[in-house]
Amino acid sequence: MRKINFSAGPSTLVLEVLKKAQDELVDYQGRGYSIMEISHRSKIFEEVHFGAMSRAKQLYGLNDDYEVLFLQGGASLQFAMIPMNLAMNGTCEYANTGVWTQKAIKEAKILGVKVKVVASSEEENFNHIPEVNFSDNADYAYICSNNTIYGTQYKEYPKTKAPLIVDASSDFFSKKVDFSNIALFYGGVQKNAGISGLACVFIRKDMLERSEKKNLTSMLKYSIHAQNHSLFNTPPTFAIYMFNLQMQWLLELGGLDKMNQINTQKAKLLYDCIDNSGGFYSTHAKSDKSLMNVSFNIKDTNLEALFVKEAEEEGMLGLKGHRILGGIRASIYNAITPEQVQILCEFMREFQKKYA
Amino acid sequence: MRKINFSAGPSTLVLEVLKKAQDELVDYQGRGYSIMEISHRSKIFEEVHFGAMSRAKQLYGLNDDYEVLFLQGGASLQFAMIPMNLAMNGTCEYANTGVWTQKAIKEAKILGVKVKVVASSEEENFNHIPEVNFSDNADYAYICSNNTIYGTQYKEYPKTKAPLIVDASSDFFSKKVDFSNIALFYGGVQKNAGISGLACVFIRKDMLERSEKKNLTSMLKYSIHAQNHSLFNTPPTFAIYMFNLQMQWLLELGGLDKMNQINTQKAKLLYDCIDNSGGFYSTHAKSDKSLMNVSFNIKDTNLEALFVKEAEEEGMLGLKGHRILGGIRASIYNAITPEQVQILCEFMREFQKKYA
Repeated sequence: MRKINFSAGPSTLVLEVLKKAQDELVDYQGRGYSIMEISHRSKIFEEVHFGAMSRAKQLYGLNDDYEVLFLQGGASLQFAMIPMNLAMNGTCEYANTGVWTQKAIKEAKILGVKVKVVASSEEENFNHIPEVNFSDNADYAYICSNNTIYGTQYKEYPKTKAPLIVDASSDFFSKKVDFSNIALFYGGVQKNAGISGLACVFIRKDMLERSEKKNLTSMLKYSIHAQNHSLFNTPPTFAIYMFNLQMQWLLELGGLDKMNQINTQKAKLLYDCIDNSGGFYSTHAKSDKSLMNVSFNIKDTNLEALFVKEAEEEGMLGLKGHRILGGIRASIYNAITPEQVQILCEFMREFQKKYA
Repeated sequence: MRKINFSAGPSTLVLEVLKKAQDELVDYQGRGYSIMEISHRSKIFEEVHFGAMSRAKQLYGLNDDYEVLFLQGGASLQFAMIPMNLAMNGTCEYANTGVWTQKAIKEAKILGVKVKVVASSEEENFNHIPEVNFSDNADYAYICSNNTIYGTQYKEYPKTKAPLIVDASSDFFSKKVDFSNIALFYGGVQKNAGISGLACVFIRKDMLERSEKKNLTSMLKYSIHAQNHSLFNTPPTFAIYMFNLQMQWLLELGGLDKMNQINTQKAKLLYDCIDNSGGFYSTHAKSDKSLMNVSFNIKDTNLEALFVKEAEEEGMLGLKGHRILGGIRASIYNAITPEQVQILCEFMREFQKKYA
């Protein structure tokens, strides 16, 4: 019996994507080998690789002003690569909205670049997205679009004349985005768009010029990866294959607007259930509530562990809140269906009846 | 019909490992989810992760003097991480035996450490392993144990008082190794021990002390990965799962001595076939011939493309030599069976009869 998996990442995959991968795992397209077994320089793999790149761009409606890079090391390595490649002589400005921006700030500071935190909701335990004004002449302006742990999300990105950098790890490929001032848009793909071990970076070409001038080792230099179409060294071929399947699934679904419509519907179901329950509540700012990670609490805190336990018995996993925040968290990424959210809502109503 | 895949990497996997992965891809151990879908912090994944680490150490007979790290970025990122973490105020010495040591040297130079190339076979187009004497007081002594492109391999590692660093990417887990002067032993696992997207690093603990003192961003610092048991950030969970399956298969086979016995048998079959053929030959030093990558040529060079084509028609892939060297190359890693090498030898004999 397949579980309903609300894990924050790595997280549930689209069942038909998973089944397709299983079907052809030993024998890819009847060729007599697995996609995992062939050279990254082979035509067969290149079809997957370049197909995935072009589908990713298509989904966001991007033209050739942007390159797509497939990198290893997750978002965590990007926290360092961004200042390494893009810091100039000005300030690197950050809006601090949670653990992931804190980590990005920390790595930039280790590198000795001029870090400036221009907005923060840290004192309110990151329960909202703070207002942010970046300097026009900053080297870059950095945000995290969705805060996995706290369940907050930018509904619109800050307007800025500085190049905007967005860590979109936990709402990657979940909705269309206005790229008009985005210079770099990136994320690990293991939440909404594949499995762990692959980061996807959209980078505007003027940023590659900055990178080009830097004295960096090859694997840490965006321009080298761009010049080599992310085949500078052996890429994580299976992770790219899985990402490609997910891109195909999104396109067949109708693209990111359609995906966003479904994601909005799912989030509404769950937030309505919380708001109408009497027993469940969420503390963060209404306008900033994430469509991806729904964090909430039970008025009687003692019931939280029981909630997680009983949900597991009903086949629902991953509902325990992050250790930093506690409480309950349901991650309802792309692969979670509205029907699965309904099942959670019904369980919540039953739970409340039983213990209220 | 399954092909016989002599690719240099990513390369063929053990069929029973591949089938096991397929069987449980959608439903891991009857749990209702895929191993790809669960948190890297979950008990179920931790069993895989720590199981893989302890099996890897068991296979090489290593005690707690060494830590195992699971990293992303392949050997290519290690070319930079090694000097970043381990260079002190002395020289970083390299034996240059091919493209992979050239790349390692290049990255160290970018970092501005004191690089000294103490031996090289570059002038003879890397057709042998040169004699090498490292300085006792070097910061480290660096070799590549097997040269994938040229088909040369160290039969014994150089003795040195300096910490020895071995890039073992293309003979990783193919045989036992004397670790008595090894400080760091590493490789991408996509040739002998799994799929691409995972590098495995064995590091002696005194090297972690060097790393600890360095001012490096977190993902580039060995000591951070060691302290976090390679769970500092989301690791490539599926690649680790595949690596673990491969470790289990090696242990069930009887370990690395048994694996080496089979690998030696396979290489003997193929080298004997070349040497006794009259039409095929290999130019590199007999004593340095690789048990992993068998490079050879056909006396009538015009026949080489035909050889590759006809072999493909017979279901044998990946025999075209690397573009740098040309000719033919058969990579006969762990997952290639003696029977498959026999089939190649028979094809070679038939080919020669037909075209001699």
